[in-house]
Amino acid sequence: MVVTLTTDFGEGSPYVAAMKARLLLGCPAAVLVDVSHSVPAFDVISGAFVLWAGTREFGAGAVHLAVVDPGVGGSRRAVAFQLDDAWYVGPDNGLFGLVLARSAVAPARAIEVRRPAGASPTFEGRDVFAPAAAALAAGRAPESLGGPLAGPLAALPVSGPAVLWVDRFGNLVTNLEPPVSGLRVNGHEVTAAARTFSEAPPGVPFLYVGSMGYVEVAVRESRADDLLGARAGSPVDPF
Amino acid sequence: MVVTLTTDFGEGSPYVAAMKARLLLGCPAAVLVDVSHSVPAFDVISGAFVLWAGTREFGAGAVHLAVVDPGVGGSRRAVAFQLDDAWYVGPDNGLFGLVLARSAVAPARAIEVRRPAGASPTFEGRDVFAPAAAALAAGRAPESLGGPLAGPLAALPVSGPAVLWVDRFGNLVTNLEPPVSGLRVNGHEVTAAARTFSEAPPGVPFLYVGSMGYVEVAVRESRADDLLGARAGSPVDPF
Amino acid sequence: MVVTLTTDFGEGSPYVAAMKARLLLGCPAAVLVDVSHSVPAFDVISGAFVLWAGTREFGAGAVHLAVVDPGVGGSRRAVAFQLDDAWYVGPDNGLFGLVLARSAVAPARAIEVRRPAGASPTFEGRDVFAPAAAALAAGRAPESLGGPLAGPLAALPVSGPAVLWVDRFGNLVTNLEPPVSGLRVNGHEVTAAARTFSEAPPGVPFLYVGSMGYVEVAVRESRADDLLGARAGSPVDPF
Repeated sequence: MVVTLTTDFGEGSPYVAAMKARLLLGCPAAVLVDVSHSVPAFDVISGAFVLWAGTREFGAGAVHLAVVDPGVGGSRRAVAFQLDDAWYVGPDNGLFGLVLARSAVAPARAIEVRRPAGASPTFEGRDVFAPAAAALAAGRAPESLGGPLAGPLAALPVSGPAVLWVDRFGNLVTNLEPPVSGLRVNGHEVTAAARTFSEAPPGVPFLYVGSMGYVEVAVRESRADDLLGARAGSPVDPF
Repeated sequence: MVVTLTTDFGEGSPYVAAMKARLLLGCPAAVLVDVSHSVPAFDVISGAFVLWAGTREFGAGAVHLAVVDPGVGGSRRAVAFQLDDAWYVGPDNGLFGLVLARSAVAPARAIEVRRPAGASPTFEGRDVFAPAAAALAAGRAPESLGGPLAGPLAALPVSGPAVLWVDRFGNLVTNLEPPVSGLRVNGHEVTAAARTFSEAPPGVPFLYVGSMGYVEVAVRESRADDLLGARAGSPVDPF
Repeated sequence: MVVTLTTDFGEGSPYVAAMKARLLLGCPAAVLVDVSHSVPAFDVISGAFVLWAGTREFGAGAVHLAVVDPGVGGSRRAVAFQLDDAWYVGPDNGLFGLVLARSAVAPARAIEVRRPAGASPTFEGRDVFAPAAAALAAGRAPESLGGPLAGPLAALPVSGPAVLWVDRFGNLVTNLEPPVSGLRVNGHEVTAAARTFSEAPPGVPFLYVGSMGYVEVAVRESRADDLLGARAGSPVDPF
């Protein structure tokens, strides 16, 4: 039983290790896979992309734990839901919005996860979400974690065409699917296009279809995010 | 049998992989968990905090390998000791000082680990500590690693109230437990307090109790370490 | 069966997780070990060093998947080969050049890996190399992956003495073995030598033998790469 982790805690954070300890205590046979701990701090939109892109290949039976949670200690709900035979566990703040939007089906079951007594108000990843994910990975009944969730799960906090994620090279991944012939980003018009980086002229922003199937904007030998002043959540305007 | 790793080698260092190879050769069934490889270089105090914070949830039976070792090649001892039914393995330079100070009990057993013939003078993590940790994880007798340790283990090189760790957001984790009403840090007085980040005013350093139970100092939407000129080991003065 | 991963995707890239999903789908019992995802982008020379340094301790039976691939989508071959009873899988662009050069024997078998129908032209790590590595780890016949490789594997794109890798501290790892009494790097002469860092004077570049057996250049309390203007691939001139 694979359990994946996606957080904004930073690579090498001891808080991730504390979550892993709880996962292994609750499910010693779990195979832990880090999706990312490099999601920009509190950035739910980037987190939603990284979660979707990093977990979509795992298939049935996996449990995906995700914690990007600017509202920890506030009133957003703690949730666990089953989608395409995998479970997702984390805060209901839009972090699961892309996973939900990209699925052909609706969640089969959704639970509002109960906070255990004594849970830290500032570290629910360790005290609420990791134990819930471990319980699901260990095959415990989802009903043991809490009651049914009332109402829909939170959607991705993005309306319309936008940048979803900036990768390590400064490339912009949008939520647009091809074909797109031109894109306005922060006042700049992007109309050059290429199939691969080796085809693109240096220094000019160009459009291409990334390996996840979305339209992306890159600048060969430079950073598109800096050149165009864009980041996760920035609106884009196709034409 | 869980084996954790805590080092200052940097995320993505091939030297970490070399240590993992030795761990898996010596104990093929080991479940390896990275606590951190992002401890600031040679920073024993930060390492001691990350080790304690990242390993305290694992419970009985785990082996915790830690290498932050400015004195490699010098005369500090190589040690393995059992505490609360877990083993710790690494250099005796204060890196285990917080783990020892925070435990209610004394180490049950402590071994001075023998250097194998041919061990590199500059890479004891691979040649001394990883094989010792693997042997313990595989259930070999601790006495096979060396003789009993003479005298006490090294304490954390911090006297009095101080910063133990700076997290990725620039927040200062001190070694003070609540309640603390005010703190002097590098000439600055911090008296504002909050229970969560969402309660704190932007730009002003404030006190709060972190998820590890210590008093921390943060600045909402900024870095406390830069604003206050503090880092791991910096003294703080409660009032 | 250990499967290691070496890429330039960046720590915390969801693309690494997508590769791991394919590995675990093809070989559920695989033990995944990250060597590094911090290889500088498109830097085949650094990648070759990190791969060699990070995998050489794993011994027989391991499968080493490596993807640093500036030519993805171009004409370089996809390969899998067996060396010293381990398998290596990735692009044939020189990335395996150091592993090959440092082995006392020639590859026992080499396969040109067939691209599966529908493989993304920009993400062969997920669609070509990970499935091939999983098949080998699961014990499938290498011949099922493609036909025999025609001609030799690509060599490391370095001729003569050079820097192979810059570590996180800015130290330069060369491809020279001791003894070396002096080294010219980018117009600077380095003649000071030390056995350990603690012996070296601050601020002056010095030579030492690193834990991998190569001559390295460091500057105590500073970065040799910045001070000497050197990086992976920079020529050095011993005297």
